[in-house]
Amino acid sequence: MQLSLHTDYALRTLMTLATEDRLMTVDELATVHAISRNHLAKVVQHLQARGWIDTVRGRGGGIRLAMLPAEIGVGQVVRNFETLDSFVACMADGSSCTITGACGLKPALRGALEAFLAHLDRFTLADIARDRSGLKALLAG
Amino acid sequence: MQLSLHTDYALRTLMTLATEDRLMTVDELATVHAISRNHLAKVVQHLQARGWIDTVRGRGGGIRLAMLPAEIGVGQVVRNFETLDSFVACMADGSSCTITGACGLKPALRGALEAFLAHLDRFTLADIARDRSGLKALLAG
Repeated sequence: MQLSLHTDYALRTLMTLATEDRLMTVDELATVHAISRNHLAKVVQHLQARGWIDTVRGRGGGIRLAMLPAEIGVGQVVRNFETLDSFVACMADGSSCTITGACGLKPALRGALEAFLAHLDRFTLADIARDRSGLKALLAG
Repeated sequence: MQLSLHTDYALRTLMTLATEDRLMTVDELATVHAISRNHLAKVVQHLQARGWIDTVRGRGGGIRLAMLPAEIGVGQVVRNFETLDSFVACMADGSSCTITGACGLKPALRGALEAFLAHLDRFTLADIARDRSGLKALLAG
């Protein structure tokens, strides 16, 4: 059980932008976090489409938060990037599970996923990016 | 975000054994659920090592529950089969995340996973295998 790479990258991008008060490029973010530039570019597109970041094009351009960190919910971000409707094979459309209907597992797992997300709903980007010392040091380095 | 194949198979195996009052073979379980026999055999070994099922060897042998369904917690099974300490890259040993220490995300995710498991702790195998009609029909067919 793992958070998807895209959710991971989305959260790291938002946290980094929350600690900076300037435009950052995708290249810069990929380098700072030592992650794939191609995957990150897709994540950035999604973050922009969702209205969480702004893009400034051209020389000296880059991306920045389009909202205050306190306005971006961690639960919302995870809901947007995770595919939760195939959490177990039996939840997916066209499931090959042979006991669907006889099974009380699915509602139990759905409830557990709701509890997972409800916990994350208690945090905003401002909460999880609160300790900026490490990030600042990294960005200065 | 997905439950691992092995957790999925473990739960299906336990649910099927809970509906039957007899020995079943790994071959039979693999056929009924249309799942990989090899993966299922590994899961069955793990279930046996954990004390949840008994194996009877030889002709006419097979596996059966070693406890009452009400004694097997769904949360316990998931904890035993899932690898949760690498839920995001930053949680794993030797993580390549560059902002560990500056990050308030990890404790938030840990709390969310605990909420997920705490919800599953409210169910036993007896709860999730309660509606036996579908399984019985499947096994009869």
